Amino acid sequence: MDSSSRNFEIDETVSLDDAAKEIVIIDQTKLPGTRRMLRLSLPEEFYNAIKRLEVRGAPAIGVFAAFAAYLCACRIKETDHDKFYSAFSKDRDYLNSSRPTAVNLSWALNRMDRVVKDNAGKPVSEILDAMRAEALLIRQQDEDACRAIGENALTLLKPGYGLLTHCNAGQLATSKYGTATAAMYLGHERGYDFHIFCDETRPLLQGARLTAYELAAAGMDVTLQCDNMAGALMASGKIDAVLVGCDRVAANGDTANKIGTSVVATLAKHYGIPFYVCGPMSTIDPSIKSGADIPIEQRDGDEVTTMWYEKRMAPEGIKVFNPAFDVTDHSLITAIITETGIYYPPFSFGQR
Amino acid sequence: MDSSSRNFEIDETVSLDDAAKEIVIIDQTKLPGTRRMLRLSLPEEFYNAIKRLEVRGAPAIGVFAAFAAYLCACRIKETDHDKFYSAFSKDRDYLNSSRPTAVNLSWALNRMDRVVKDNAGKPVSEILDAMRAEALLIRQQDEDACRAIGENALTLLKPGYGLLTHCNAGQLATSKYGTATAAMYLGHERGYDFHIFCDETRPLLQGARLTAYELAAAGMDVTLQCDNMAGALMASGKIDAVLVGCDRVAANGDTANKIGTSVVATLAKHYGIPFYVCGPMSTIDPSIKSGADIPIEQRDGDEVTTMWYEKRMAPEGIKVFNPAFDVTDHSLITAIITETGIYYPPFSFGQR
Repeated sequence: MDSSSRNFEIDETVSLDDAAKEIVIIDQTKLPGTRRMLRLSLPEEFYNAIKRLEVRGAPAIGVFAAFAAYLCACRIKETDHDKFYSAFSKDRDYLNSSRPTAVNLSWALNRMDRVVKDNAGKPVSEILDAMRAEALLIRQQDEDACRAIGENALTLLKPGYGLLTHCNAGQLATSKYGTATAAMYLGHERGYDFHIFCDETRPLLQGARLTAYELAAAGMDVTLQCDNMAGALMASGKIDAVLVGCDRVAANGDTANKIGTSVVATLAKHYGIPFYVCGPMSTIDPSIKSGADIPIEQRDGDEVTTMWYEKRMAPEGIKVFNPAFDVTDHSLITAIITETGIYYPPFSFGQR
Repeated sequence: MDSSSRNFEIDETVSLDDAAKEIVIIDQTKLPGTRRMLRLSLPEEFYNAIKRLEVRGAPAIGVFAAFAAYLCACRIKETDHDKFYSAFSKDRDYLNSSRPTAVNLSWALNRMDRVVKDNAGKPVSEILDAMRAEALLIRQQDEDACRAIGENALTLLKPGYGLLTHCNAGQLATSKYGTATAAMYLGHERGYDFHIFCDETRPLLQGARLTAYELAAAGMDVTLQCDNMAGALMASGKIDAVLVGCDRVAANGDTANKIGTSVVATLAKHYGIPFYVCGPMSTIDPSIKSGADIPIEQRDGDEVTTMWYEKRMAPEGIKVFNPAFDVTDHSLITAIITETGIYYPPFSFGQR
């Protein structure tokens, strides 16, 4: 096990049991109270795991989708390539429809699609081998990218810094290290003594349940606050930098991330605190000019009005505004940190 | 019943049953699920009702404290004025220690104290009559002030406006009409067709439980959102003005109000939306120069980590930042609306 996750209870956020033809994940909707592992093998299970947020976080969704595409392909009985590809395409489109905002989902599925196309002349068994290898490569590249993001981000931070993060762009959202948290893990190994402040991140409380959980488990100094307390925290002088993840970055730097990220960015600008977006290059979507064109997922109002569907906390019948993401305008972003470097404004990401 | 509360299930937020020597309140910690009325008669019950937020909202706390001071005085057996005043002073200080931030608590208790002092030569029965009259006057003045605040605020709003509010500065926080909501009630009567957006207001969800409840019950068009969605709402163009209440306003206009109010103000400034603070003149404390001197109540972390103390939503042992209020810098406030008029920057509230 890598030293950065020595104290962390979860070895791998998403793993493949190839013998059983199953993906193994930890059910993130049950953390931190219950550590329930899920073993998934059917297309509907893969779709629902993404939809229900049992697996979440843009990079982790990408890795999961790659494994899912491979296991869906293993179930196809066709041997004729055209028929095989046609069946695979249906699975691919079905998986791709599970959530709209994070680009990593379609990015990973497109990589798997290319493997199927590029091996058109080969027997299905070889195509499957190539798909498995590609999925494992996607996961390895994600882990490498996260580590590089952490190294890059760490050059912008000093020991003793107070760092605020929103939602979970941690190890649980990726293969390892996380994106926004990568510099926290690396800094923690190197004695930086950061003070980490986690926004709880309503409505689904990923900050309280996941980020606070994994960083505290790794032995860091972690404080939890409600989202609306970030202003008072910044005013108090306790925050030296903000680090967040991203679900899709447009060519001009506009960044879709968990709802509330744009609020943190506006506050950081007001209080003169640097605001860093962290993510792998796969999260950058140069085909989209600006944030106005990023599709924003609207989720069920029950997530807001009831607490984990157990107790109702708002009047019956009340209308609810519940977008899962918002767009942080590029003008509010100090830098975008990827595995290939630190990008400063003006942002201009070209076609790859 | 006043027409503005025709559809509202609660006639009076705080009322006095003088025959029974009890204060009657609706338990605001149980709304909207349960409508439980509380009848309180003992000093400890009064203290706990404020502390536990069974009664809350700066103006309502003032009215409640006045009734409580009167009922505490009714229980004093002393007939000598010095001894009577000494016993009353203990009750007064005890009640005053229940919550630190809202100035209305001490303001109301000071008015009751003055009545006791001003009637020094009279028999206790007459002092008690004067105290009861003063407490009822405080409530009537609060109701009149709220209505005047609403009339003043309404001059700044147009039909069809989208209005965002934070926490509950509604009828449940006052004697009637509310402060931030007064213009909403009056506008609703007059066919303004406002679209009201309520921040849920973590950690105790007063916006979801109380504001959404009372405004929907009054027949308004109400939408609920998590606090961190206010940025996306403003970016969408749906919000034309923000109206919030206040717990204490310093001489320079710095305003203490429910945690997160400063976040809404920062967002409003960023998106060019007017941000109005509404409150009675009793909420203005000219003895305090700026927000830095306003005491901010820090509350138990359990309010954040567990949902109404029933289910834990964060790791065991996690540190929590849980201030009940924050200070909105005067530079972020478009106007402060009271019963005596609309005050624009630069704010300079003198000693009364």
